[in-house]
Amino acid sequence: MNTFGYKYRFTSFGESHGAAVGGVIDGCPAGLSIDFDFINHQLDRRACRVENPILTSSRAKSESDEIEWLSGVYGSQTLGTPIAFIIRNKDVRSSDYDNLTHVFRPGHADMTYQAKYGCRDPRGGGRASARETVARVVAGSIAQQLLREKNIFIKAQVQRIGECKDPMQWQEYVKAIAEEGDSIGGIVRCTISGVPVGLGEPVFDKLQAQLAYAIMSINACKGFDYGTGFERVGVKGSESNKISGGMLGGITTGEDIVFRAVFKPTPSIAKEQIAIDDSGNPVTIKINGRHDVCFLPRVLPVVECMAAMVIINNVL
Amino acid sequence: MNTFGYKYRFTSFGESHGAAVGGVIDGCPAGLSIDFDFINHQLDRRACRVENPILTSSRAKSESDEIEWLSGVYGSQTLGTPIAFIIRNKDVRSSDYDNLTHVFRPGHADMTYQAKYGCRDPRGGGRASARETVARVVAGSIAQQLLREKNIFIKAQVQRIGECKDPMQWQEYVKAIAEEGDSIGGIVRCTISGVPVGLGEPVFDKLQAQLAYAIMSINACKGFDYGTGFERVGVKGSESNKISGGMLGGITTGEDIVFRAVFKPTPSIAKEQIAIDDSGNPVTIKINGRHDVCFLPRVLPVVECMAAMVIINNVL
Amino acid sequence: MNTFGYKYRFTSFGESHGAAVGGVIDGCPAGLSIDFDFINHQLDRRACRVENPILTSSRAKSESDEIEWLSGVYGSQTLGTPIAFIIRNKDVRSSDYDNLTHVFRPGHADMTYQAKYGCRDPRGGGRASARETVARVVAGSIAQQLLREKNIFIKAQVQRIGECKDPMQWQEYVKAIAEEGDSIGGIVRCTISGVPVGLGEPVFDKLQAQLAYAIMSINACKGFDYGTGFERVGVKGSESNKISGGMLGGITTGEDIVFRAVFKPTPSIAKEQIAIDDSGNPVTIKINGRHDVCFLPRVLPVVECMAAMVIINNVL
Amino acid sequence: MNTFGYKYRFTSFGESHGAAVGGVIDGCPAGLSIDFDFINHQLDRRACRVENPILTSSRAKSESDEIEWLSGVYGSQTLGTPIAFIIRNKDVRSSDYDNLTHVFRPGHADMTYQAKYGCRDPRGGGRASARETVARVVAGSIAQQLLREKNIFIKAQVQRIGECKDPMQWQEYVKAIAEEGDSIGGIVRCTISGVPVGLGEPVFDKLQAQLAYAIMSINACKGFDYGTGFERVGVKGSESNKISGGMLGGITTGEDIVFRAVFKPTPSIAKEQIAIDDSGNPVTIKINGRHDVCFLPRVLPVVECMAAMVIINNVL
Repeated sequence: MNTFGYKYRFTSFGESHGAAVGGVIDGCPAGLSIDFDFINHQLDRRACRVENPILTSSRAKSESDEIEWLSGVYGSQTLGTPIAFIIRNKDVRSSDYDNLTHVFRPGHADMTYQAKYGCRDPRGGGRASARETVARVVAGSIAQQLLREKNIFIKAQVQRIGECKDPMQWQEYVKAIAEEGDSIGGIVRCTISGVPVGLGEPVFDKLQAQLAYAIMSINACKGFDYGTGFERVGVKGSESNKISGGMLGGITTGEDIVFRAVFKPTPSIAKEQIAIDDSGNPVTIKINGRHDVCFLPRVLPVVECMAAMVIINNVL
Repeated sequence: MNTFGYKYRFTSFGESHGAAVGGVIDGCPAGLSIDFDFINHQLDRRACRVENPILTSSRAKSESDEIEWLSGVYGSQTLGTPIAFIIRNKDVRSSDYDNLTHVFRPGHADMTYQAKYGCRDPRGGGRASARETVARVVAGSIAQQLLREKNIFIKAQVQRIGECKDPMQWQEYVKAIAEEGDSIGGIVRCTISGVPVGLGEPVFDKLQAQLAYAIMSINACKGFDYGTGFERVGVKGSESNKISGGMLGGITTGEDIVFRAVFKPTPSIAKEQIAIDDSGNPVTIKINGRHDVCFLPRVLPVVECMAAMVIINNVL
Repeated sequence: MNTFGYKYRFTSFGESHGAAVGGVIDGCPAGLSIDFDFINHQLDRRACRVENPILTSSRAKSESDEIEWLSGVYGSQTLGTPIAFIIRNKDVRSSDYDNLTHVFRPGHADMTYQAKYGCRDPRGGGRASARETVARVVAGSIAQQLLREKNIFIKAQVQRIGECKDPMQWQEYVKAIAEEGDSIGGIVRCTISGVPVGLGEPVFDKLQAQLAYAIMSINACKGFDYGTGFERVGVKGSESNKISGGMLGGITTGEDIVFRAVFKPTPSIAKEQIAIDDSGNPVTIKINGRHDVCFLPRVLPVVECMAAMVIINNVL
Repeated sequence: MNTFGYKYRFTSFGESHGAAVGGVIDGCPAGLSIDFDFINHQLDRRACRVENPILTSSRAKSESDEIEWLSGVYGSQTLGTPIAFIIRNKDVRSSDYDNLTHVFRPGHADMTYQAKYGCRDPRGGGRASARETVARVVAGSIAQQLLREKNIFIKAQVQRIGECKDPMQWQEYVKAIAEEGDSIGGIVRCTISGVPVGLGEPVFDKLQAQLAYAIMSINACKGFDYGTGFERVGVKGSESNKISGGMLGGITTGEDIVFRAVFKPTPSIAKEQIAIDDSGNPVTIKINGRHDVCFLPRVLPVVECMAAMVIINNVL
């Protein structure tokens, strides 16, 4: 399903190489004056149009993502009706994909989409592309704005890149991997502050379950934890009883919520790889195009936006 | 919300010290001959009525959980109508809780439930108690049976207890912690085999997101991962492209699904702890009653059952 | 699906001749002191244990419906957790159905259930029986109580029985039909007063659409209207603009909501009928057992309860 | 909520005088070759661009509704991903509304929207306008096409205009009402043929309940019935047992489904009316612009499309 949330209900659409990506937000309260600057700032973080030492070497600056608002907004005010928006796919370089039309790229969803739908958009990743997260960032930034008015703030940061925990070393580390024609993942740490006590719904909609669902729906996300998590698996009860991660019994305690998400490396790498084509034969491929060596800085606003949509659905 | 799933829709009810716990399953196909033995076997695993070296020392054998079938079943055959069942709370030793009526037990949901609902069942954990998982095991065991007929099998195992990865050492390790009056958590590893290609729904209902939601809704679960996960965060793209964990782009590849879940230790420990009472004052408490030093073996059927309910919702 | 509503979410279960019928209410606020007398009063109206001139001749008094509360209630107080309740099917006279085991009763769901599920409970109507509405009345009476605290009141009345609009003549009219061994339907009119302005959600969850869905889910209901409705189809715009029925654009105006529902006659009649058996052969049958000549007075609390569940879902 | 259906899930957006109206269809199977001609034909019926004797006098021909497909379609083939489409509001004559900015038009949703949202698009009916049904017709026409491939056909016809049941007299009747500056409603009859036995889900999602919900969500719809309905309220059980309307116990019998819907007259009339302005004062108004004397022929494709979306959700 391409709809997320119940009260603040976001429907996402669009292929990476189709006419546009976009979304519909149903349930946004009337009378909000949309902070377009904030949305653009979040889109710029996602697109690496803000300075980031990890990324400078790996990717050229792209044009800004221009949002066309189709409904639900009059001037800058929300009307309480569904907010529809699109971002046209201006910069479609499908020629990068010409030699991959019949290849299932390793680590990508090419094979599974083909198997599930019996067809796929041959011009790129389609719905499985990270392009889709543009719409999440628009919808989630409005959610963040709504939360800000309730003094709830969400901030995601890179905690670790590959094996490297020291931010001072990240630039060098990523550069070395870039030179190998390879890519690297890492861990994001997200803090939600200002949360009131009492959010979350037992027994299935525990807040951590809602957050895990939202975050694990992001491309390349391979894990979610909070509180003692995977890091502190050796801690005994007498100690872990002091660490809540902001939720107990699935309900917020009023303390900051802190969770982590782990992302695998970009599967698109310059290095030669063995793939399978759609006749089942092995082929050797090199993936051209602009691909990130480490996309972690870019995923931060996406993590914030998904978390924001979870929280707003519990607050409204 | 206390309802899980859409096609195979399970609604759970019951407090730990009320009359009964139970559930309603809506959407189970008609004509299934229910395997009551398998359900009882899963309930026995959950209740530690089967042999387990880790647990022998920590907990007395309890009576079996007797299921009363109220609807949806005629003889042993399902009718296609809602299956309602209850398990009475025969063995209610509320006296263990007498001295805790006004105390928020550390690491428990006592405080957050009180804050959210303004009241709570003073006789025990209520809905927040792990007692609630009895109903999940009944509903999930029927889901497992439905999957078995499609040659899909789910098996959870303990991967690690605290810092200890060697099963040979677990009994000694747990015994030592028991002697301290403390408790310990660990990691469960679950394998789903026989999965057809094509399960999972982009972009929000990616199968890993559905699984994470289901597993993170289990009491004490602090994290979920699959594929490279948190364990292999240092792996580069050229390597991680070979590790799918059974899902790509949120859709099954046809390979086994393998995921992990991390659980914190039981918060109920014999050791003296500082708690807060409902007037906000610190008090020193010792928690009596039968509590597990390490509940990991008991959570295995619960993990299997939640995973089974996810898969059946994608298969039906 | 056997679940109704989202915020005040009611799941119904139970066959007419199984162990019990019952329900689970998820989302009822904590701290309500349940008015058991009111629930019993509504159950008595449904079961014809209150005086009703239309019905006296057609049906013996039945025992009261005894509710067993399984969860979500401590003393008479709701806990905010799922409220589960059952009513055992004490008075099961399945022998009435012995000669009908292989017959599809005309106007009943016997044939369609058999076709859909490939099996059915041979002891009676199963889920298709009006027995199922007992659970609706319990859940809806609690909803009515919640609404009463907000000064919203719901009252259903018989408007018409068959062709007869004059209440003074109903008793005679029904008596004559009883003597023919036949049955008769009619129209119910329901008024919801004290409704605040602004309830209802465009564009699909217009309040009239929600009400129509709820009311049309009652057995034997064949139509729903409000405002000018079917009655005043000849009215012109200049006149109909003055008649809102309490809703405009799917949203309440603050005026009373008035709607109507039409019910067909009980299909179970004493008179000889031609039916089809499950081998496809025509058979002549007479249906024994206690069946209403005109069940309209009994459906009134069911109509009120379904309307109450719609409104509470828009108010919470 | 602006989303309809679960399996074939349609989300609608757009104000009548905003940039565009449109929708997102989630769950349409991959590999369908969309019949654009049929969609345009349905849009032409809705917009009165096909011949209709009732309407010729009342309304000028409008330009065609041009659909822009944004996603989910490659060439004419569906991809299995969300289908997003928009229709720009080219012909926005907001000046017609200049004198109505502060007036709550009688019989319109102006007042209720203002009360609910605290604001509204002053340029016209916004979401409450029948303009919104354009998107329903696009989504529903694709559903009709899917049904056609399963030999299920849906056809709506005008049964009655006002008090007038004879089609031969309709043109004269409507003309006379036009001359008064007034408007008139009527009854639509819809037949669904080729339906397999077994559609519909007890006990709340009885097929008639789903249909009533869908049809009652159409602007100006005031009632829904089927089978004996409101028309044949005097029929006795021995007779009504022979009339199923295509559904028994909420499940299709395999016979044609026949239902009726009653619509009130257009509230926008040329005739002088007393209205209330947003300060609560009475004002006399005349509504200019192109308004239908009798919109019944235009609502036929909308009725068909809503019915089609109900059926496809039960068939997929």
